[in-house]
Amino acid sequence: MCAALAKPVLYTYFRSSCTWRVRIALALKGIAYDSAPVNLVKDGGQQMTPEYQAVNPMQQVPALKIDGITLSQSIAIIEYLEETRPKPSLLPQDPKKRALVRMISEHIASGIQPLQNLTVLEQFGEKKQDWAKNCISRGFKALEQILHETAGRYCVGDEVTMADLCLVPQVFNAGRFKVDLTPFPTINRINKALLELEAFQTSHPSRQPDTPSELRV
Amino acid sequence: MCAALAKPVLYTYFRSSCTWRVRIALALKGIAYDSAPVNLVKDGGQQMTPEYQAVNPMQQVPALKIDGITLSQSIAIIEYLEETRPKPSLLPQDPKKRALVRMISEHIASGIQPLQNLTVLEQFGEKKQDWAKNCISRGFKALEQILHETAGRYCVGDEVTMADLCLVPQVFNAGRFKVDLTPFPTINRINKALLELEAFQTSHPSRQPDTPSELRV
Repeated sequence: MCAALAKPVLYTYFRSSCTWRVRIALALKGIAYDSAPVNLVKDGGQQMTPEYQAVNPMQQVPALKIDGITLSQSIAIIEYLEETRPKPSLLPQDPKKRALVRMISEHIASGIQPLQNLTVLEQFGEKKQDWAKNCISRGFKALEQILHETAGRYCVGDEVTMADLCLVPQVFNAGRFKVDLTPFPTINRINKALLELEAFQTSHPSRQPDTPSELRV
Repeated sequence: MCAALAKPVLYTYFRSSCTWRVRIALALKGIAYDSAPVNLVKDGGQQMTPEYQAVNPMQQVPALKIDGITLSQSIAIIEYLEETRPKPSLLPQDPKKRALVRMISEHIASGIQPLQNLTVLEQFGEKKQDWAKNCISRGFKALEQILHETAGRYCVGDEVTMADLCLVPQVFNAGRFKVDLTPFPTINRINKALLELEAFQTSHPSRQPDTPSELRV
C-alpha cells in the first residue's frame, strides 16, 4: 500500500497528556488510526529502545506516522492535521482568535506540562508531588485569568479549539497530583463541558488499548 | 491614535531566549516597535509587579501589544505575525515542511527551553549548571538527528523559518551553560550561518536597549 494511503499510526501511552491532545484531534476529525503503544515506565521505558529512537529521536510520545512522514510534538501534529484535514476546524477563522487559541495551547504545552514531566519529576524525589502541584497551580492561576477574557462555553468562544485539546489532559494531570480546582472555576467548568463530548471520552486515558485493566472504566 | 494603528510594544528582556525569537521575527518582517524592558532579576523580578501581571498573567516575557490585543507565548506571537504580516514568510508553503518547522520549533520551545528556565534552575542550587547542560545536550542530540533529515542551509531547507528563530537563541543559552557543541556539527553550522544575517544581529541580546553596558558589543 502506498504510504500516503496507509492508515496513520499513533505512538501512544494511555497516560501521556501530550498524546491525549492528539487522540482528541484524531477523534474530532474522524481520522481512523492504528495505535502503537509505547510503555513509558515498563523495563525502564520502551521509548529508550533503538527502534523507538528511530521513530522519535527525542524518545517521547506522541509520534504520528501519516502521509509518508513521521511527526513528533503534539501541537505541530495538531496544526498539520488542521491544515490537511480542516473539518471540523480546531482553529477559529479570525487571526486574533487564532492567536488566543495558540497562546493558551502554548501556555499549557510549554509553560505547564514540561515542568511536571516524568524526567523533571524524577529529580525531585520526595518533593515530587509538591513541585508538580505548585507548577500546575501557578499555571492555572494565570490561565484562569486569561480565560476570563477569552472563554465562552469553551476556552475561546463557543467552539472546541486546539486550546481545549490541551486543557482537558492538563486538568487530568492536575487531578493525579491532587491540585485543588476550587480557585479555578472557569477551568473546572470548561473541563466538565468538554468531558461531555464523545471525542474527549473515547480518547480518555481510562479507555485506551494499553490502559491496564485495573484503571479501566 | 487608534489601537490598531499604534506601534506594537514588545515587553522584552535582553537575555530572554523566548523574547529573542520574537525580536528576530519583528526584524525579519520589518515591523517597527517600541521596547518595554522588563528586568527579570532586578528587585526580585519586575515581572512580578501587579502592572506587569495585568499585561501577562504568567509573569513572563515576551508579551506583545499589537493590533489592539496583548499576546504572550513566543510561538503564538510569531504565528500571529505570520498570518497578519505574511512577507517574508517564516513558514514554507508545503504542509509537510510547515509541520517539520513547527515540530523543530516546539522541540526547542517545549522540549528544551522550559527545563532550563529560571524558575526550574532555582530548584537545583549548585547542580544548576549540570542540570541545564544535561537538558540542552539531550535535546540537541535529538535535534541534530532530526536536522540530518530536514536541513539545507538552515533548519528546514534553504529559507529562514520559525525553526531558525528558535534555534539561535537556544544555542546562545547553550553557550551560557558551557555546552560543548562538537557533537552537534549541523546545529553549529546552521547557527553560524544564521548569525551572519542582519535580523539575527540587531535582535541579539548584546545589542538591546536594556543590555547592561558591560555586556554590549
